Amino acid sequence: MKVGIIGATGYGGLELIRILHNHPSVSNIDLFTSSDEGSIFSDKYTHLLNIYDQDLLKIDNSRLKELDVVFTSTPSGVSSTLLPSLIGLGPKLIDLSGDFRLKDLAEYERWYKKTPAPAEAVEQSVYGLTEWNTEAIKDAAIIANPGCYPTAVLLSLLPLLKNNLIDANNIVIDAKSGVSGAGNKPSQMTHFSETNENTAIYKIHEHQHIPEIEQAIGMFAKHHSPITFTTTLVPMTRGILATSYVPVTTGTTEKQLVEALEEKYADQPFVRIIKDAAKFGTNQVRGSNYCDIHVRLDPRTNRATIVSAIDNLVKGAAGQAIQNMNVQFGLDQTTGLRLVPLFI
Amino acid sequence: MKVGIIGATGYGGLELIRILHNHPSVSNIDLFTSSDEGSIFSDKYTHLLNIYDQDLLKIDNSRLKELDVVFTSTPSGVSSTLLPSLIGLGPKLIDLSGDFRLKDLAEYERWYKKTPAPAEAVEQSVYGLTEWNTEAIKDAAIIANPGCYPTAVLLSLLPLLKNNLIDANNIVIDAKSGVSGAGNKPSQMTHFSETNENTAIYKIHEHQHIPEIEQAIGMFAKHHSPITFTTTLVPMTRGILATSYVPVTTGTTEKQLVEALEEKYADQPFVRIIKDAAKFGTNQVRGSNYCDIHVRLDPRTNRATIVSAIDNLVKGAAGQAIQNMNVQFGLDQTTGLRLVPLFI
Amino acid sequence: MKVGIIGATGYGGLELIRILHNHPSVSNIDLFTSSDEGSIFSDKYTHLLNIYDQDLLKIDNSRLKELDVVFTSTPSGVSSTLLPSLIGLGPKLIDLSGDFRLKDLAEYERWYKKTPAPAEAVEQSVYGLTEWNTEAIKDAAIIANPGCYPTAVLLSLLPLLKNNLIDANNIVIDAKSGVSGAGNKPSQMTHFSETNENTAIYKIHEHQHIPEIEQAIGMFAKHHSPITFTTTLVPMTRGILATSYVPVTTGTTEKQLVEALEEKYADQPFVRIIKDAAKFGTNQVRGSNYCDIHVRLDPRTNRATIVSAIDNLVKGAAGQAIQNMNVQFGLDQTTGLRLVPLFI
Amino acid sequence: MKVGIIGATGYGGLELIRILHNHPSVSNIDLFTSSDEGSIFSDKYTHLLNIYDQDLLKIDNSRLKELDVVFTSTPSGVSSTLLPSLIGLGPKLIDLSGDFRLKDLAEYERWYKKTPAPAEAVEQSVYGLTEWNTEAIKDAAIIANPGCYPTAVLLSLLPLLKNNLIDANNIVIDAKSGVSGAGNKPSQMTHFSETNENTAIYKIHEHQHIPEIEQAIGMFAKHHSPITFTTTLVPMTRGILATSYVPVTTGTTEKQLVEALEEKYADQPFVRIIKDAAKFGTNQVRGSNYCDIHVRLDPRTNRATIVSAIDNLVKGAAGQAIQNMNVQFGLDQTTGLRLVPLFI
Repeated sequence: MKVGIIGATGYGGLELIRILHNHPSVSNIDLFTSSDEGSIFSDKYTHLLNIYDQDLLKIDNSRLKELDVVFTSTPSGVSSTLLPSLIGLGPKLIDLSGDFRLKDLAEYERWYKKTPAPAEAVEQSVYGLTEWNTEAIKDAAIIANPGCYPTAVLLSLLPLLKNNLIDANNIVIDAKSGVSGAGNKPSQMTHFSETNENTAIYKIHEHQHIPEIEQAIGMFAKHHSPITFTTTLVPMTRGILATSYVPVTTGTTEKQLVEALEEKYADQPFVRIIKDAAKFGTNQVRGSNYCDIHVRLDPRTNRATIVSAIDNLVKGAAGQAIQNMNVQFGLDQTTGLRLVPLFI
Repeated sequence: MKVGIIGATGYGGLELIRILHNHPSVSNIDLFTSSDEGSIFSDKYTHLLNIYDQDLLKIDNSRLKELDVVFTSTPSGVSSTLLPSLIGLGPKLIDLSGDFRLKDLAEYERWYKKTPAPAEAVEQSVYGLTEWNTEAIKDAAIIANPGCYPTAVLLSLLPLLKNNLIDANNIVIDAKSGVSGAGNKPSQMTHFSETNENTAIYKIHEHQHIPEIEQAIGMFAKHHSPITFTTTLVPMTRGILATSYVPVTTGTTEKQLVEALEEKYADQPFVRIIKDAAKFGTNQVRGSNYCDIHVRLDPRTNRATIVSAIDNLVKGAAGQAIQNMNVQFGLDQTTGLRLVPLFI
Repeated sequence: MKVGIIGATGYGGLELIRILHNHPSVSNIDLFTSSDEGSIFSDKYTHLLNIYDQDLLKIDNSRLKELDVVFTSTPSGVSSTLLPSLIGLGPKLIDLSGDFRLKDLAEYERWYKKTPAPAEAVEQSVYGLTEWNTEAIKDAAIIANPGCYPTAVLLSLLPLLKNNLIDANNIVIDAKSGVSGAGNKPSQMTHFSETNENTAIYKIHEHQHIPEIEQAIGMFAKHHSPITFTTTLVPMTRGILATSYVPVTTGTTEKQLVEALEEKYADQPFVRIIKDAAKFGTNQVRGSNYCDIHVRLDPRTNRATIVSAIDNLVKGAAGQAIQNMNVQFGLDQTTGLRLVPLFI
Repeated sequence: MKVGIIGATGYGGLELIRILHNHPSVSNIDLFTSSDEGSIFSDKYTHLLNIYDQDLLKIDNSRLKELDVVFTSTPSGVSSTLLPSLIGLGPKLIDLSGDFRLKDLAEYERWYKKTPAPAEAVEQSVYGLTEWNTEAIKDAAIIANPGCYPTAVLLSLLPLLKNNLIDANNIVIDAKSGVSGAGNKPSQMTHFSETNENTAIYKIHEHQHIPEIEQAIGMFAKHHSPITFTTTLVPMTRGILATSYVPVTTGTTEKQLVEALEEKYADQPFVRIIKDAAKFGTNQVRGSNYCDIHVRLDPRTNRATIVSAIDNLVKGAAGQAIQNMNVQFGLDQTTGLRLVPLFI
């Protein structure tokens, strides 16, 4: 399998490279960039010395079409112009940006404040939440790989919503993220001296992952009410912990909540239901493709607290993208992805 | 003013010492302990060399009664036995533990799983949320200094509840804390290699600050419905960020929310209403006695998101205790407390 | 290949498991412990749920002798009593503790303050600094896997000492380490609130890795003068950065220093000579088996500054142990070890 | 006392403000800037809301000359042009940049790669290492406040050099610093995701503090041989730990080393000699003006290891500048500087 990565110099690109390097079906990885073409990749990222000393390539369809799969890990508004022309030329297309996720182009414009991708291309794209869309993913023209927050949130909420165990009209989500989600471009918000020892809110009520979560809830669990979603930046590099607060429907027990999750994910290799809250944190999934979920019913309020943890760069980006690639090529989902969490 | 600190070797005690050292009305600080008596304080805490080289004293009422004020910064279940015998002997008594906070002794037993303090002593104690209980604090036999989480939560919610701007029956609180809140005793949960780069939940729905928050809401804003309250440990030492999600009452606007907060705290030196969410984090209050509050109405859901930040060791413990001491002695509340946040 | 790990619950054991899990020649891993036998491994370490749900086994020679290789990742003084009885029974023996590293038993007693291993067993053991002892490793009865600090220091100094480019009688080493080197047992020194935001010295001039470094210098580069070696704890989990200061011998140029390193490691897959100091840090090797080296000659003082970086848990422990296992079984050294550094 | 700060928006400026806010002799602080004039200071730094809501002022000599003291906390090459015109106009001048530290203008040009200050102004400036230059500081036209690294290094080495206890021709210094030393401007080197969990070298052998250290050694201890000096960035915000390695002169004992330090600093309020190495770290001085020193003689090598710790923003910048201000105005050195270390 010959793979191409567009946007290789971002953190999503780096993580694709880290994982694909040991993927048994991948024979070659071409790295494409719009900014540093011709430069040697390991000159920019010394940690890849002796591993990826190759030149960064100019983005060029004649070269891209020879590949088996192309990943785009680019800022918003880039893949929307790059990918449509590649549809049907040969390679599978997997987009890690938000450009093909929202079916409603007006919503894209509203939240992303960018020109949406062409309607036809968006129509042919499939939302790549692997555990929920496996069949559709197989033949998708473009995989719209889910955002990091939506992945953590949806995997934990969808089974409960689908089984009508929680009140779909009353969803509050408090998501905490490490700093790597902000990418590799330095800014005041990511300046070490002001980020270290600081827990801060950002993009409150305005995060572009809100419509993505709402659309997916509608897609898989039939529901369209607005959610409240806030994001908090915590002083660590990797990891998302998403805590959702939702009243249960009448009569729902904690046991039912746990069982709905266990049943849905019984055969899914990357979603784990954790019983022991005392040991539930982002370090349990770090560096791996796992999504861990813990659910508790607060007996005093009849509200469910649903917590999920992922590594934002793996299950929240590159890992899930490779999981989708595996699905598209008929491989076992875990191929190249049996990464043990680092924990320490 | 002669001050005594019982439990000087804990983090609360250390922070009392740090701040009182520059308090203009304090002439002397005696340090008491039940475990290291006779040892030199700066041998245990080298950062206090040349500052507090004095002996740690045995807890002894004949010595304590000569003091003007005694702070107890002890684990649950200690001050409940120490303080009652000191009532009326002379010194003002300020307790930083949870032993005198809950008026309902059965609730204390339920959440703390310890024997409560004598009913008479609890009756004579006053909840020391300074901005809300100033008059009662002046003549209290014992000040029950509020917990760190309740301080952050109550200062932000009470003005909105009191003005009926938010739905008192529908309160969800997601509180994030640095690790110093767990005290100075090493454990697996606070072991650096497993805490660093980890965001984790703990004591979900079971934190002993829950009844304290509910009692105070009832006390100052007439309301007794259970709240949902969860705590998340983030990898930093100091700081609490509490995010509350509450539906607004019919017709409430964001402007009204902001104004209710501004009005309540217009003359309060330590509570600041922050308009710019982009700069809202715990580092803005670090090392200081400030509580910063930010409120936003999510127009899509009619839910208010109310965020507050404190330094758990200052406004959440030692700082508020000294603020209460100032009130009791008729000093300006800011005496010795004009600490500028460290930020970096 | 059937593998056993004694001391599976320590950080070294966890890292062996993390890496061996994807080793293509390993079919089975048995986990042994002296303390938690019978308990399920993933109950203790939830991050291994669904990966290692097996029971922890009692240490038992009749079971151990059926294995192909046994790793001991135990505190000092344990493998010295366990391993001798396994010599010749079948499995290759690889010890990650310091018990078989020092050939001079009196030195072991002096620095470790423990009873040394039997002289005969120590004699049959081989120091497992892979790049320097490959041949001897192949048939060793016991591999004494090098300590984390010695690995970083020796790989960078030995080529320069062997080529007489630096003054063997004048070696100063300042080594910085992340906190995971202190293991998984909580203590005040590793308590998050006192470790975070703190850079501290420890075991100054007294670290038990000093005689190991000196012995290896004598072994591979013919030199026995004492070194000055200090260790500094930095607030991160993984990584060692060792900086050595050594006067060069007359006429030595920076080019010669670089070339001696490049020549020695030209065919070694895990040692990289880094030219660009601006990008030299422990995050470049994190999670991988690389040792990165940078050397500079200070023209003002004729002193060489030699810096090396490793992940203390990988190249400094589990990774090198597996590299040695590969050598012993005639596999390519990189088998199962082509881990790309995490960097972020 | 009316104070002005030029460069108020940098970290040095912020720390001056934090400390001067509680200085009993300071009645007013004017904040000057070359970049944000007219903007409100607390709009840029929200942590100063309600504390410094004043306008940032344009740099203007007619206003500056009305002040009692002016601090310049500016990048290299700025105060060299601003301060000469203020000499003799009235205010005391204290420069926190490197512009007036080096008496040899050619050295300044070589290491700073900028145009040096006018020779006459440099001649009238006094190196503000308070404990070593108290008398000269009193009447200086300009105080050249020492760099952060030189402060840590010189306070620990000078007493030993002056007493000929260590070999002045053989000094190696390995200095570790938190990230705040790099200032408030974001860059890849200070980007959280690449700085967190990373210990890295920078400016190896090329740091502009090298000539400053060498000049001061010559000034106070008569010695001019080049030193080897390297800097390592550790993942924390505040703090410098400097470790120096120097052979002792014949017959020197550890006791003599300790006594030389104790004697020199017996009456100095901000330098502490720490005997217990097990508790020696940067958190012991954090937020305070202390410099802690620990010295050990390695009996195996006759080399002294001398460690010192400061808060780079306090004793290494703003704190020492205020200490110098106190000296100039005949105040007790500790006025406004009795800050207790935060430790946690």
